[in-house]
Amino acid sequence: MKSTSKITIFVLFFVFTFGVTSAQFAKPEEAVKYRKSVMFLIVQHFKRMGAVVQGKATYDKDAFSVNADVVKMLATLPWDAMRVPGTDMGDTTQSSAVFDKPAQFNKAADSFETLTTMLAGTAKGGELNAIKAQFGKVAQNCKSCHANFRKK
Amino acid sequence: MKSTSKITIFVLFFVFTFGVTSAQFAKPEEAVKYRKSVMFLIVQHFKRMGAVVQGKATYDKDAFSVNADVVKMLATLPWDAMRVPGTDMGDTTQSSAVFDKPAQFNKAADSFETLTTMLAGTAKGGELNAIKAQFGKVAQNCKSCHANFRKK
Repeated sequence: MKSTSKITIFVLFFVFTFGVTSAQFAKPEEAVKYRKSVMFLIVQHFKRMGAVVQGKATYDKDAFSVNADVVKMLATLPWDAMRVPGTDMGDTTQSSAVFDKPAQFNKAADSFETLTTMLAGTAKGGELNAIKAQFGKVAQNCKSCHANFRKK
Repeated sequence: MKSTSKITIFVLFFVFTFGVTSAQFAKPEEAVKYRKSVMFLIVQHFKRMGAVVQGKATYDKDAFSVNADVVKMLATLPWDAMRVPGTDMGDTTQSSAVFDKPAQFNKAADSFETLTTMLAGTAKGGELNAIKAQFGKVAQNCKSCHANFRKK
């Protein structure tokens, strides 16, 4: 009886997960394309902020803030697409660690959302030193998440 | 003197335009990839709403609202990448009409931003009939913009 309950819970969990997945993406390749699109856009806007932080571009408060807002929003998007079973194979740099260490992955994802939300808030303040510090924390989060969850 | 002024204005305009472009995109291919990524994501989230509007998926107010918010934000992004000179050539479906009819293109782009902002607002209200009507207006805007500015 106890193991039946466990199986039921597992099946419900699977159906729920698969249901959500199939509702969001018609096929696994679409999930891969989705997350690649999101990550490419994040990189683009992150680079624009990076140029300012590194002193290679002039600091414009409003433009920086727009970039930070865009990254904040994009940061909420890619995770479900990364959790689609089997999408660590084929034309992707996603490591299977995403499936092997889900708690650690979820923590890194949550952390990215939190840090980019904080960056967007700091950007509105317009204090360049505070912005640089917060930008550095986001960059560090990118780096450690890639080290753990991207193929070498 | 008059023609010198015209040339100066032209050069300033070109430098300004090129300056903005090069600051945002390292090369034209990056602009094409950028706008393709944005449009792909818009389509994904638009399809999720479309399934609800067509009665193929259950209406969930919060989920619908998130999709509408994502599309509203994404709707602000692709236009600059579409205005990068020469990117109507090569691996793209963008028509040269974007450069030939800039005023009409800007109007269609502005209209898309306005209509998706309105959809996001309507989605928060949770009135499904109002949502369907507003969704239809956005879809119509997609269609007419593609008819005018996408290669046949």
